[in-house]
Amino acid sequence: MDETELPGIRGPLRFRPETGQPLLELVEVLLRGPHPLTPGERELIAAYVSGRNECTYCCSAHSAYAAAQLDEGMTLVDQVRSDLDNAPISAKLRALLRIAGAVQVSGREVTPELVAAARAEGATDLEIHDTVLIAAAFCMFNRYVDGLGTEPAADPGWYAQASERIVNKGYRQVV
Amino acid sequence: MDETELPGIRGPLRFRPETGQPLLELVEVLLRGPHPLTPGERELIAAYVSGRNECTYCCSAHSAYAAAQLDEGMTLVDQVRSDLDNAPISAKLRALLRIAGAVQVSGREVTPELVAAARAEGATDLEIHDTVLIAAAFCMFNRYVDGLGTEPAADPGWYAQASERIVNKGYRQVV
Repeated sequence: MDETELPGIRGPLRFRPETGQPLLELVEVLLRGPHPLTPGERELIAAYVSGRNECTYCCSAHSAYAAAQLDEGMTLVDQVRSDLDNAPISAKLRALLRIAGAVQVSGREVTPELVAAARAEGATDLEIHDTVLIAAAFCMFNRYVDGLGTEPAADPGWYAQASERIVNKGYRQVV
Repeated sequence: MDETELPGIRGPLRFRPETGQPLLELVEVLLRGPHPLTPGERELIAAYVSGRNECTYCCSAHSAYAAAQLDEGMTLVDQVRSDLDNAPISAKLRALLRIAGAVQVSGREVTPELVAAARAEGATDLEIHDTVLIAAAFCMFNRYVDGLGTEPAADPGWYAQASERIVNKGYRQVV
């Protein structure tokens, strides 16, 4: 797709708005809709999965969006991505991130034990469902972005600017 | 999710209609919207990727939907899934299925050579874009279905019945 020089997913989303709109609606509901997990926590799941898929654009973008919405900022994002077992997060969020890590490999890696561990820390059906779907959705977004050979932003400052727009206006405005 | 005994993805889609609706809108546009590839050819891409992800429900369902919409029926679906190099399909569709197979592993597996080979057989930007997104989307759907531990249909005849509804009424009616 040479139609646009926008970084990452934005070019493909605008190239094909018929698919761009449901994709943005999905991510708006999953990452910013009313929810027991904060937007920062849900962006952290997206960044974590994107990092494991080695998708530079998505990982940079969603790490920035997570950092902007978490009190501990990028320090916490980096800790979760590099050492999940010891990162200073709640036991529930850690258990959900372990489910997300399993989904990144395959849905069949999500064992009853992983789900039981999350439930034991208080995770609800909705939180488990949405964690699986966020992780699965980023397995799609990461492949979409990299499969079309899009480029990450040339200027690292771009992600901070994008983050301000996403936090204030959400995902639907992207297309 | 014990909320429902529907097979495969239908329980989760109805459990969370806020995400179910954009997911169904996406798949309706990708697999059934106006397109240079027929619905049967696009369902074949979905079945091929789901088979490679070993997602029994999605592979059974989309194989049935492909077979119902291809003149050569399930014989062709089986040939494509078991021996892509020699299956009796167009050179363009074979090149697109090779791209889909790469996406199933990782977006970064889609090489410029794979894209050039598809273009040499006449594939357009739209066909390449949609092949990448169909393959990426089924990497999501497969993980969603298996990650929530849903069951395939107990009765194999269920897929043929579902196929009649999908072919006649499309995906939006599922939720």
